[in-house]
Amino acid sequence: MRCACAPGLGMKAQNIRTLALIVSTLFYLLIGAAVFAALESEAESSGKKVLEEKLQQLKDAYGFTDSDFSQVEKVVLRSEPHSAGRQWKFAGSFYFAITVITTIGYGHAAPCTDAGKVFCMFYALLGIPLTLVMFQSLGERINTCVHVVLSRGKQSLGLLKTDVSMINMVLVGLLLCSGTLCIGAAAFSHFEGWSFFNAYYYSFITLTTIGFGDFVALQKKDTLQRRMTALSAPIRMRCKDIVTQSSSTPSPTGWTKS
Amino acid sequence: MRCACAPGLGMKAQNIRTLALIVSTLFYLLIGAAVFAALESEAESSGKKVLEEKLQQLKDAYGFTDSDFSQVEKVVLRSEPHSAGRQWKFAGSFYFAITVITTIGYGHAAPCTDAGKVFCMFYALLGIPLTLVMFQSLGERINTCVHVVLSRGKQSLGLLKTDVSMINMVLVGLLLCSGTLCIGAAAFSHFEGWSFFNAYYYSFITLTTIGFGDFVALQKKDTLQRRMTALSAPIRMRCKDIVTQSSSTPSPTGWTKS
Ligand SMILES: [K+]
Ligand SMILES: [K+]
Repeated sequence: MRCACAPGLGMKAQNIRTLALIVSTLFYLLIGAAVFAALESEAESSGKKVLEEKLQQLKDAYGFTDSDFSQVEKVVLRSEPHSAGRQWKFAGSFYFAITVITTIGYGHAAPCTDAGKVFCMFYALLGIPLTLVMFQSLGERINTCVHVVLSRGKQSLGLLKTDVSMINMVLVGLLLCSGTLCIGAAAFSHFEGWSFFNAYYYSFITLTTIGFGDFVALQKKDTLQRRMTALSAPIRMRCKDIVTQSSSTPSPTGWTKS
Repeated sequence: MRCACAPGLGMKAQNIRTLALIVSTLFYLLIGAAVFAALESEAESSGKKVLEEKLQQLKDAYGFTDSDFSQVEKVVLRSEPHSAGRQWKFAGSFYFAITVITTIGYGHAAPCTDAGKVFCMFYALLGIPLTLVMFQSLGERINTCVHVVLSRGKQSLGLLKTDVSMINMVLVGLLLCSGTLCIGAAAFSHFEGWSFFNAYYYSFITLTTIGFGDFVALQKKDTLQRRMTALSAPIRMRCKDIVTQSSSTPSPTGWTKS
């Protein structure tokens, strides 16, 4: 009658497994830390040096005192989230809501008001499980579909064994994932002007829901507004058509662009 | 023999369920977008106005041209990640590795070198499943433990029904979650100097693995280095003790602080 969570002589195999997993994760973190430090540390310090020199040049050029400069710094840093245009119009808020319920959370925009923060928490509380269940259900449908397609493909090729193995499914899954990544990379590279490598990295970081926010799509000056407006234009046109048709006295000049 | 993923008259109940989930998620996103826009839009535009005025004041005060200012802006924005001290020493890299494998991804630090980005992708590919399995296993152990504790508690209280119901477990789960959030909030509020509300918001955004990065712990000037050094000091002392004891000729002055 020993408590199942207490380590001891009667410790179950499952407890050992959990402990092994924790130790492995810690070990994995240590390795990661060592490699990341080795890869990034030098670039960081050299980058810092260059920036400090430039900063000194700027301070000299404009006659900044340190307190002046910290004021400039503050304003620039606070202005930065505004540089990509309005984030909290409907289009931007929709984009933000997606990053919340998928747990990507780029952080290119985050609620500033207390009410926004409170709503964000409740929104995530309900939205994350909903999204999980939705993607799980969608995944199952895709699975079934792939299964049927593979089975029929084997039949039409006249193969003797037409049953789809686990390995077949895993291979198709890997193919679909890397296909998605490559298509995403190509698309983002084209529309955002990023290198293919950076676009691939962005797609990967997004699909794993890590979402660093070092690259964020639709963040070039007002792209979000323009793209979303372009996307919603046909819908709005359609609505207007319906209104026009149902209206008994159509306006003589037609619809002007809003 | 209709493909299971194609919508049509023979569409299965599961397909309808998936479709309903997708529509619900879209609807949920629309509601979220409307509420976020309503809550944040005004604060954004008034904040932007204030910043633009300050910016104009600064430009006037220092005689910036627009191109001068964009140069200042660039340097300030690039310097920002360095403001919290070195991110890519071992301690910082360890912290970063945690944000990768948990998919929190604050983005307070993100790899800048191509090698760092490539390693980060492979690291996530293996690390995320490992972490998931680890937490799942740990969760199961905690579940078992709670079950035993509840059952014994009921026995010792002399209750007739000593079996633990699903509702009991869910209630304890909710209690544990909100307890963790409150303890986290209290701790971060104390150590980071954030308001309790902001610290609670930070804990929530972290535990859900959204990780906006609007608040990030251990990012005040060199805190990471200092805290991690403080944590590792006892370990280093212990290592030194062992070395001292195993050494046949101990140094007369003892160990000096490194
Ligand atoms: K994130
Ligand atoms: K995230």
